[in-house]
Amino acid sequence: MIEQYRHCIEACYFCAAACDNCAASCLKEENLEMMRDCIRLDTQCASLCRLSAQFMALDSDAAKALCAICADICQQCGEECGKHQHDHCQQCSKACLHCAEACRKMAA
Amino acid sequence: MIEQYRHCIEACYFCAAACDNCAASCLKEENLEMMRDCIRLDTQCASLCRLSAQFMALDSDAAKALCAICADICQQCGEECGKHQHDHCQQCSKACLHCAEACRKMAA
Amino acid sequence: MIEQYRHCIEACYFCAAACDNCAASCLKEENLEMMRDCIRLDTQCASLCRLSAQFMALDSDAAKALCAICADICQQCGEECGKHQHDHCQQCSKACLHCAEACRKMAA
Amino acid sequence: MIEQYRHCIEACYFCAAACDNCAASCLKEENLEMMRDCIRLDTQCASLCRLSAQFMALDSDAAKALCAICADICQQCGEECGKHQHDHCQQCSKACLHCAEACRKMAA
Repeated sequence: MIEQYRHCIEACYFCAAACDNCAASCLKEENLEMMRDCIRLDTQCASLCRLSAQFMALDSDAAKALCAICADICQQCGEECGKHQHDHCQQCSKACLHCAEACRKMAA
Repeated sequence: MIEQYRHCIEACYFCAAACDNCAASCLKEENLEMMRDCIRLDTQCASLCRLSAQFMALDSDAAKALCAICADICQQCGEECGKHQHDHCQQCSKACLHCAEACRKMAA
Repeated sequence: MIEQYRHCIEACYFCAAACDNCAASCLKEENLEMMRDCIRLDTQCASLCRLSAQFMALDSDAAKALCAICADICQQCGEECGKHQHDHCQQCSKACLHCAEACRKMAA
Repeated sequence: MIEQYRHCIEACYFCAAACDNCAASCLKEENLEMMRDCIRLDTQCASLCRLSAQFMALDSDAAKALCAICADICQQCGEECGKHQHDHCQQCSKACLHCAEACRKMAA
């Protein structure tokens, strides 16, 4: 693995797992109404984190540009999830904000 | 994250990164001819590992069935990569065989 | 493109687009409570359809096994979406049931 | 499906199938040495086309930014594949250049 990418790839995959878990858990919550944005952003964030990780591991010329977009979605998702007190939301928020930071550095 | 899945999800994403890195590195090797199967299996293995990880994190009913197929491809890819002495192949082989074992347990 | 796969690949990608559209549209519906299973299955169905299409186009040995699992999820998603009268659900249901049939034939 | 996206989603999925088919076929060609860039770009192009299609169907705010990156990779892949006379390369080149144009319009 290319060393410069290792940390960001790990952050992306960790974030993807947290987002998938959060989306599926949100869909089981009693108060579903307030989880709309959380579910919507979780799904997008998980998919984009996986793609960004793939492109970094492939050492693609497009990796940095993808990380820039990924950082934005991670930031949005992390802020939205942070509003909710469920464990899955709090864990997801933390993973997203950490990944947003890693992706911003990668994109710079 | 559902605890029973955590180890297998991590193994899948670690394997996906190793396979992507191996595929891209194989494509730069001098002796490309002998890397055909390696590149072919790396690409499939990385994609299926990502999907299996996603379905586990989503707690999907289909997760176990996907892990069973993933275990097969990981095993094949791990054996093929193990034939080559490049660092990226050896690291990939190790990640694949570890993931094959984790997926087999999950599928059981 | 390998001719035997062409129809099923098209059905899978058409179904993936219908499922993504349905999931995003469900998340905006007034009566969100009744859309839980629809959103959950849409997300899984879209991802698995994309992977199955990829593995068919790659002419992978695992394509048939993936199509078998894909057929099951498409069938479930098609039946669930068919219960709802929104246009996006009805269109998604039709795409899913068509794809389920195509995947069953491919898996046979 | 949101009408403005329909054509570009179809172009992306058609391109993904052509790229996967081309990558797998290139790996079986006798003269593998000259297919390095083709295989490398096919793999990236297929993955990014699938993600862009997903984000359009989800009506994501990030869809346009992804289409801009996708247009670049499609253009590169279409030009590279166009250098080779194999049917799979020529078909892939056509699909890529068509998708590049659709993604550029979407991103604008």
